[in-house]
Amino acid sequence: MRILILGGDGYLGWPTAMHFATRGHEVTVYDNYLRRRIALETDSEPLVSLLPLPERASRFEAETGKRIRVVLGDCCNLEQLLQTVRETAPEVIVHYAEQPSAPYSMADRGAARLTFENNLGATFNVIWAVLEAAPDCHIVKLGTMGEYGTPNIDIEEGWIDVQHKGRTQKFLYPRQAGSLYHTTKVLDTDLLWFYVRLYGLQVTDLMQGPVYGLSTPEMDLHPELATAFNYDDIFGTVVNRFITQAVAGVPLTVYGKGGQTRGYLNIKDTLQCIELAANSPPGAGQLRVLNQFTERFSVNQLAERVKGVGDKMGLSVEIRPVDNPRKEAEDHYYNPAHSGLLDLGLQPLFLTDDVMSAMLERVLQHREAIDQRKILPRVRWNS
Amino acid sequence: MRILILGGDGYLGWPTAMHFATRGHEVTVYDNYLRRRIALETDSEPLVSLLPLPERASRFEAETGKRIRVVLGDCCNLEQLLQTVRETAPEVIVHYAEQPSAPYSMADRGAARLTFENNLGATFNVIWAVLEAAPDCHIVKLGTMGEYGTPNIDIEEGWIDVQHKGRTQKFLYPRQAGSLYHTTKVLDTDLLWFYVRLYGLQVTDLMQGPVYGLSTPEMDLHPELATAFNYDDIFGTVVNRFITQAVAGVPLTVYGKGGQTRGYLNIKDTLQCIELAANSPPGAGQLRVLNQFTERFSVNQLAERVKGVGDKMGLSVEIRPVDNPRKEAEDHYYNPAHSGLLDLGLQPLFLTDDVMSAMLERVLQHREAIDQRKILPRVRWNS
Repeated sequence: MRILILGGDGYLGWPTAMHFATRGHEVTVYDNYLRRRIALETDSEPLVSLLPLPERASRFEAETGKRIRVVLGDCCNLEQLLQTVRETAPEVIVHYAEQPSAPYSMADRGAARLTFENNLGATFNVIWAVLEAAPDCHIVKLGTMGEYGTPNIDIEEGWIDVQHKGRTQKFLYPRQAGSLYHTTKVLDTDLLWFYVRLYGLQVTDLMQGPVYGLSTPEMDLHPELATAFNYDDIFGTVVNRFITQAVAGVPLTVYGKGGQTRGYLNIKDTLQCIELAANSPPGAGQLRVLNQFTERFSVNQLAERVKGVGDKMGLSVEIRPVDNPRKEAEDHYYNPAHSGLLDLGLQPLFLTDDVMSAMLERVLQHREAIDQRKILPRVRWNS
Repeated sequence: MRILILGGDGYLGWPTAMHFATRGHEVTVYDNYLRRRIALETDSEPLVSLLPLPERASRFEAETGKRIRVVLGDCCNLEQLLQTVRETAPEVIVHYAEQPSAPYSMADRGAARLTFENNLGATFNVIWAVLEAAPDCHIVKLGTMGEYGTPNIDIEEGWIDVQHKGRTQKFLYPRQAGSLYHTTKVLDTDLLWFYVRLYGLQVTDLMQGPVYGLSTPEMDLHPELATAFNYDDIFGTVVNRFITQAVAGVPLTVYGKGGQTRGYLNIKDTLQCIELAANSPPGAGQLRVLNQFTERFSVNQLAERVKGVGDKMGLSVEIRPVDNPRKEAEDHYYNPAHSGLLDLGLQPLFLTDDVMSAMLERVLQHREAIDQRKILPRVRWNS
């Protein structure tokens, strides 16, 4: 397949590119380094610094003989994106190209505007680039479980049949998110669903939970193939943060009561899910929604798990709740469906003690690089 | 009250400004003439050409002794909007400032982009101008009944209690619109609801049906106080179009089967509704949604009504269905609630024969100005 990966420099974008290229697909990555710029500006650099994309692609080719084409471009520049879509004639576009940090989106007006304009502008342009230059292309869009929020009823996979006064209507499952970042993904969904209905686009919306991990077969080939592993409050997801805090001897920062429950998955499972989605397009005029996670934990459970494994490794892990910087329910009902990807063949990797100790070992190799100033929450929106 | 009317040059904006100014409120209108520019570019000029806003305000002051302050500004320019909000310190902002044409939003990529960027950018900036410069201000936002589409269950007023597997959750009523214009209003709602939840904004979202009419007490004071009355396929709403077609001797253009049913209201009722909403703010942290229409008709019913009244006036009105340029259900369930504004005190004016004959009489005065090239649909998105 010809696959165009938008946001191909990201935590998931780069491993996705290597994953598909290894399997013989024609892969192009497209990125404008927005996340790198924000990381620099917010003092949120990843644990291991990254080579530029062309150098990473060269290293990948040296290790595997497989080529990843790199285009340094901005999804908000429609002409540039259109040209890339025309040149690559993709059968699949994986759309990761969004400002991905909830705290950053809540930092101030400028960060809100950047998030809003970038994320909506990118999705609008992806839609029009596909309509004009690759109308049969399957768009695999990264959504987030965070779009649903924490409703008091079961979360279904994207859709819900509403019974009301003796009649029934199927609707997109109502979404209400807890940050502007997550809200931009709600708006993305609305916009994609409109163009699916009106113009017959085919879209898979992957409602992903927080991802953890820093190992995939391709990343493990060479240190220069590592992805952006963030442990800071801006870009770091909670498992990655806790693992790094355990290594650094910093108490694990549970936000508030720690009852917040989410669905999590290993970065290797993200790659499986993207591949499964790409291999089975939904068909023209279809918006397929899949809830992408493998198991559920509360923040307290995660902290206890990391402490358990860390203590066994002699790390003496402490847990110290901090005032919740986020406006969110700390104790809530949470029962999301997630059978769609299992039905497509997903073989889940769970967050076992072995997986956690392997993460701890890997991060221990970079212990000196951990900057403790980046760990405590620097953005608050719960006031 | 100090009232800032964004989009104060529009079909509804200008009459709203005069309505509030007449009642002694301090009114500022803010507009960048975007609708005038699009009307020029698409050959969709209104029946009677309009003076610039400052001249209209001068004429209004000459007639009534009341002042309307005019600021020529763009809601997409946050600094300009912020400055106006700081200067006017509004207690109420009426937000009409959107590209309002469904057909225009579907014309091509450029029109789609303009609609998307203008409408979302304006709403984003209104939110931030209020957060930064007038946090207690009540935002009265013009939504549209078109956000709901035509679901197979009753349409409630903005919210719905969903019963699902023995549990219950109140959600924003799910929205799915039939044009990009209407979809931008869905996204507006998502965004406003997010900032209401997170930062305690107070917002009334008025889900308005198609408006008709060209007479209000203030407009009737002097011909130069008329509003933009469009009868073309781009900006003209269906009753206004049919009335004008009847006068011009052009068969009424029913789109498709004509079973499309909507809730309609007189422009005088729009003014009542806006005033009722402004007089009773919902309170901080509240998104109040009101369905703003007074009675329901199918397109066929409207055509028959206009024909009936027109024929009595000797106009020999014909009805001629044309291929539906829109992608929409032509025969559907439609039962929307609309008790909220009645509870606030709305006294509806219905579309009586007298109201229709008065409209026909008024348009007859401008019969020579009707340009028949503007009447048939020029934008199609049902293919």
